[in-house]
Amino acid sequence: MPKKGAQTGDSKEEEEPAKRLERFGSKILGDVERKQNPSFSVTTRTRSNIMYDEKEGFLKLGASSEEHNFINIAQSKRFMQTVAIAAKCHDFVKQNLHTTIRGLFYQLKYSLGEDIDENIFNEQSESNPLIEDLEVALDMKRENLNLNANRKGVLTGNMRVLDSFGNEKTEIDTSKMGRSGWAIPSDVDNDIEFVDVKAKYVLVVEKDALWQRLNEDGFWKKENAILISPQGQAARGTRRIIRKLADMGLPVYVFNDGDAWGWYIYWTIKTGSMNLAYIGRDIATPEARFIGVTMSDLERYEFLKSMTMRATEVDLKRAQEMLNYPWINQHKEWVSELKEVLKTKKKLEQDTLQGPRLTFVDDYIREKIKNKEFMP
Amino acid sequence: MPKKGAQTGDSKEEEEPAKRLERFGSKILGDVERKQNPSFSVTTRTRSNIMYDEKEGFLKLGASSEEHNFINIAQSKRFMQTVAIAAKCHDFVKQNLHTTIRGLFYQLKYSLGEDIDENIFNEQSESNPLIEDLEVALDMKRENLNLNANRKGVLTGNMRVLDSFGNEKTEIDTSKMGRSGWAIPSDVDNDIEFVDVKAKYVLVVEKDALWQRLNEDGFWKKENAILISPQGQAARGTRRIIRKLADMGLPVYVFNDGDAWGWYIYWTIKTGSMNLAYIGRDIATPEARFIGVTMSDLERYEFLKSMTMRATEVDLKRAQEMLNYPWINQHKEWVSELKEVLKTKKKLEQDTLQGPRLTFVDDYIREKIKNKEFMP
Repeated sequence: MPKKGAQTGDSKEEEEPAKRLERFGSKILGDVERKQNPSFSVTTRTRSNIMYDEKEGFLKLGASSEEHNFINIAQSKRFMQTVAIAAKCHDFVKQNLHTTIRGLFYQLKYSLGEDIDENIFNEQSESNPLIEDLEVALDMKRENLNLNANRKGVLTGNMRVLDSFGNEKTEIDTSKMGRSGWAIPSDVDNDIEFVDVKAKYVLVVEKDALWQRLNEDGFWKKENAILISPQGQAARGTRRIIRKLADMGLPVYVFNDGDAWGWYIYWTIKTGSMNLAYIGRDIATPEARFIGVTMSDLERYEFLKSMTMRATEVDLKRAQEMLNYPWINQHKEWVSELKEVLKTKKKLEQDTLQGPRLTFVDDYIREKIKNKEFMP
Repeated sequence: MPKKGAQTGDSKEEEEPAKRLERFGSKILGDVERKQNPSFSVTTRTRSNIMYDEKEGFLKLGASSEEHNFINIAQSKRFMQTVAIAAKCHDFVKQNLHTTIRGLFYQLKYSLGEDIDENIFNEQSESNPLIEDLEVALDMKRENLNLNANRKGVLTGNMRVLDSFGNEKTEIDTSKMGRSGWAIPSDVDNDIEFVDVKAKYVLVVEKDALWQRLNEDGFWKKENAILISPQGQAARGTRRIIRKLADMGLPVYVFNDGDAWGWYIYWTIKTGSMNLAYIGRDIATPEARFIGVTMSDLERYEFLKSMTMRATEVDLKRAQEMLNYPWINQHKEWVSELKEVLKTKKKLEQDTLQGPRLTFVDDYIREKIKNKEFMP
């Protein structure tokens, strides 16, 4: 049986998904029986309703919401589609089987069969936003509705995973994963538990190549850290596990490239992102700190001066944009970093720290953490 | 210590990498001492020297080779660069530490330091082809030179991995990986062993989403299969482990989309690819069979008729190209499949098999394998 969020501040997900879906359906049925226009309410997800929570430090949706009605020419198809999605998700939850939003799309395409000319959906681009509508209407993430998001990311460190999956309970020791690491799954909330987390901190490393380098050196063993790579932009599951580890009291340090992508990956982990603002609280880790690489590293490590790259148009444009975000430009360290990039038109990759010797990167990180030299 | 390929037909990799690199260096040093023009020989990797091995069934390099000379205005920089790469790889092998070609690039950038205006390399695009030169000159894969390629791919099934990595031996039971699976590493040859492989066959599934679906159903347990997803195009490590499992006598079945990408991923696993023809033998699995999805599935499963997608220009162009490859058009089943795509301009995704019910895909695969209904 799918379980509720558990452990880490998921107060709003206390109700079983099946029950919540049934309540959603009953309300609509009730509207019909009361001869009212069937409707449900959805918090608006457009840009104008996305805001930064100053106090907590993440991107979230504001108070505006809209009513979706069945008897409304502009809305009735969309209404019917959302209800069809809810019915399918209810099936999946009841069957205790998972699929993706693509699998859901094909089930919906199938369900009307040959007899009706009209498909419920012609393109998946039609069904995707309605899944988000449903998540918001139910105040419940798609993972709880048995819809897997893409997964990416690896983890190693002193921790055990109790994975109750496919009618079998597996215990995984993430300190015994050799060169590979534990592949972070799509859903790290339901039927899964993290126990014996004995590490002192979490180190997130943008590139898998650097993660492998640090893993080979046994960096996480010597430091007693949980070593994670999102392998580029962090997937939902990876952002979520970082949040959960932070909830267990572990500091989170992020080691990325000093460029548009590196910054973006960091801020997504820290504050969440615009397009996932509707679940912002659950996947943002405002406690995260950026340990590098930064332009100020150039002052400290002479050899880096011959290792810079020319910043691209994308890097410069992104730096400029970031200077406009209040949640970024409130930090003088970031203003200074980004202005330096704009002035010098240079950038720096994390791989450069292998220049002097392959294990130099270990010392760099250790020193930055020891001296608390990181950016907010 | 890095070990040789072991187990599976890597006869050419019997010499230790360090020794082979030293022999490479000694030869050049000898040339200098004998007052000859220092040189080494490299098999040509251009299109004209890539050929299909009819008998064995994979893409490989032909007999033409070229001499790289130091005293030659057109070649001396390139020569010097290749020797610098070889020296670095020798360091890595001696240190028993790994990095990527990007890490290597920064080490080379570093090594000349501030005193010399000229960098050994300005761009990584300069060093990449020279690493391939070195692999060919040494007749040894980059993995043996401690250079990790990008990794991607997951595996689960009845098998154990003995991973001697970072001075520690880890035993991983790939049947106890829960929802995640074992992340297939970059290097599956050195300091790693696969034992107790008890499965009856290998099933390769293009999309991670479908792999997760089958994993949840315990498909591989019921069938006693090794379940692999390359998660899209197969990385070197994934192709290599498929080859190794085939060498252990396991049949290999590939379940992909019926489109340009799906076909390409299949043929890359089966015959290798043009750009890796120089190591073709080690990463090709000519024994692989394609179980679907195919246009002929439309005849068999009525519901699929409403689930086709319009083939894109890329799909049609690829189908036409494939009809020109002798290693593909020798199979009448493929000619008929590709002609059907060109005629109907339709394609089919593997995800469609979740249409009637989520577990339908299990039955589809089981039946195809049972009835040996697959394409060569």
